[in-house]
Amino acid sequence: MPRSLITLIDRIGAPDAEAMAAAERRLDQLTKPPGSLGRLERLAVQIAGITGEVAPSLDNKAIVVMAGDHGVCEEGVSAFPAAVTPQMVLNFLAGGAAVNVMARQAGAEVVCVDIGVNAELEHPRLVSRKVRRGTANLAKGPAMTLEEAEQAVLIGAELAAELAARGVRLIGTGEMGIGNTTPSAALLAVLGGVSPAEAVGRGTGVDDAGMARKVSAIGRGIAVNEPDPNDPFGTLAKLGGLEIAGLVGVILGAAAQRCPVVLDGFISTAAALVAVKLAPACKPYLIASHLSEERGHARLLRELGLEPALQLGMRLGEGTGAALLFPIIDASGRVLREMATFESAGVSRE
Amino acid sequence: MPRSLITLIDRIGAPDAEAMAAAERRLDQLTKPPGSLGRLERLAVQIAGITGEVAPSLDNKAIVVMAGDHGVCEEGVSAFPAAVTPQMVLNFLAGGAAVNVMARQAGAEVVCVDIGVNAELEHPRLVSRKVRRGTANLAKGPAMTLEEAEQAVLIGAELAAELAARGVRLIGTGEMGIGNTTPSAALLAVLGGVSPAEAVGRGTGVDDAGMARKVSAIGRGIAVNEPDPNDPFGTLAKLGGLEIAGLVGVILGAAAQRCPVVLDGFISTAAALVAVKLAPACKPYLIASHLSEERGHARLLRELGLEPALQLGMRLGEGTGAALLFPIIDASGRVLREMATFESAGVSRE
Repeated sequence: MPRSLITLIDRIGAPDAEAMAAAERRLDQLTKPPGSLGRLERLAVQIAGITGEVAPSLDNKAIVVMAGDHGVCEEGVSAFPAAVTPQMVLNFLAGGAAVNVMARQAGAEVVCVDIGVNAELEHPRLVSRKVRRGTANLAKGPAMTLEEAEQAVLIGAELAAELAARGVRLIGTGEMGIGNTTPSAALLAVLGGVSPAEAVGRGTGVDDAGMARKVSAIGRGIAVNEPDPNDPFGTLAKLGGLEIAGLVGVILGAAAQRCPVVLDGFISTAAALVAVKLAPACKPYLIASHLSEERGHARLLRELGLEPALQLGMRLGEGTGAALLFPIIDASGRVLREMATFESAGVSRE
Repeated sequence: MPRSLITLIDRIGAPDAEAMAAAERRLDQLTKPPGSLGRLERLAVQIAGITGEVAPSLDNKAIVVMAGDHGVCEEGVSAFPAAVTPQMVLNFLAGGAAVNVMARQAGAEVVCVDIGVNAELEHPRLVSRKVRRGTANLAKGPAMTLEEAEQAVLIGAELAAELAARGVRLIGTGEMGIGNTTPSAALLAVLGGVSPAEAVGRGTGVDDAGMARKVSAIGRGIAVNEPDPNDPFGTLAKLGGLEIAGLVGVILGAAAQRCPVVLDGFISTAAALVAVKLAPACKPYLIASHLSEERGHARLLRELGLEPALQLGMRLGEGTGAALLFPIIDASGRVLREMATFESAGVSRE
């Protein structure tokens, strides 16, 4: 692993046990049967541990949408043409995509990052951090060099630090990249020890022939690249994507900033698997949002020991599922801040 | 069934197929793979069918919390004393309970109704519609007379009509009544054909001995009352509760007003089972919110063919789960109103 990543990972601290205990004590005084708010209570305790504060205000929220293209598209792995990646980036910047809608609903900003789109893009709101114009075809060789993967991870980490520095307290992961369920499935296959056939799904909607092309591309990619499951960084470079590497950086960077990270669907969770393999210390900073329809997502979440709160049968990505969890996270903080105690409300405990 | 209920049920119309088709057409033009927003898309179509409008504004929302006491508490079926029912009603009115927190988060009002609390309650915000001070002990005879059950259902239906008349477009069901998982389990047992042992759960947190007392009370209640599974109204009177009957009325009344109803947990869904048995036409108006930890809830939802979107491991009731779904329902409407189309955003479809 590059020294820059070791430095980054070393900055990730342990959750604050005292703040967690204080949140638990508070929860047990509130007018409800102990534990009856289930996941909401566990979220409130987790966020206390992450931030070191009981019920901090997380009003300042962002969804980071990392966009990149994929050389593996030439294998026919997607239902949409690669041209859709830059088209959708412009849609994000114009506010017309699903993630914009969900983010407005949640009171979050959308931060759109060109980390590897195969087009020249300019827009006042675009964060331009292009490492290269799309990855190489992972079925034929490494998707990226180690240097490019390092650069992409560091871009994500720096972005998380910049967001934290201007007051963002909750980060959701999002992505856009036609073809990116294929590298995500490849990462699951290698780092999760799953066969390519079990790791792939229909993505944006490929048919059975498309599924077979995905399995074949991943199989050839593993054969030609010989990724080492014990080298998550090397595997990321060989089989990943620029936006996936960027999200690995966002996750590690947010954890280093004591900022909770809400994972979206399959691609985001593949990035989380890489991040946790690189730095197990980032795990307590992760919050799963929804269970995607994309087949490998349940497997990824199980691998990470994360439980999704939302079962909406979605398979869109972009950060849409993460944004939908934000109001529930807000509610968990409000419980601690606003609920009456048994004592204050004069309610009998037994 | 009383004539008044037949009149009410006759007012429930079919969903508007044209509005549903229009919502579906619109969804398929938006910049996302077809169907990729899963449940959100189905919610948007359902709400179009219910209201007859594509993407209506549902800003005006309410959680109706029906409160009542239960004679069956003398069997030792609850972890909390019956005195907690009026104490919690005052907590709702003061804004300190979990449902108040969730409702504020969702921008909904809490409408608290005393339909059968065993105490004299006065408060400027309390909707006082007491039918009687708590039910009789269902283990020893009918919980209510047929007239009382009819009165409670009509109160709920009138309340739904009043809310609709002052512009409320989305109603969530909530309840408070120490002991009320026992009548709910009794209704599931009789109307769902489930053994009392399978229908009961821990409620607010009874131990194994308390669970056994619940099973025993329901068994004796069925033996002494001889409810007819083909007579849902009679079964409601014999084994139900005043707040449960009130919620049956809210559900039927909301359906008659073309207003979507979001169900909370076990008790609310037991009321929905009674409502659907009385009036299958109300089913398209129902939206499940969360899957409760209370054991019988999954069975009730299956019986109704409803899928919960939230899996939060909650078991509090009050309407908390229903309120947590409101932002997701809002998001489904925003998708239709705010997302760009492939054409408007210049995104390729294939």
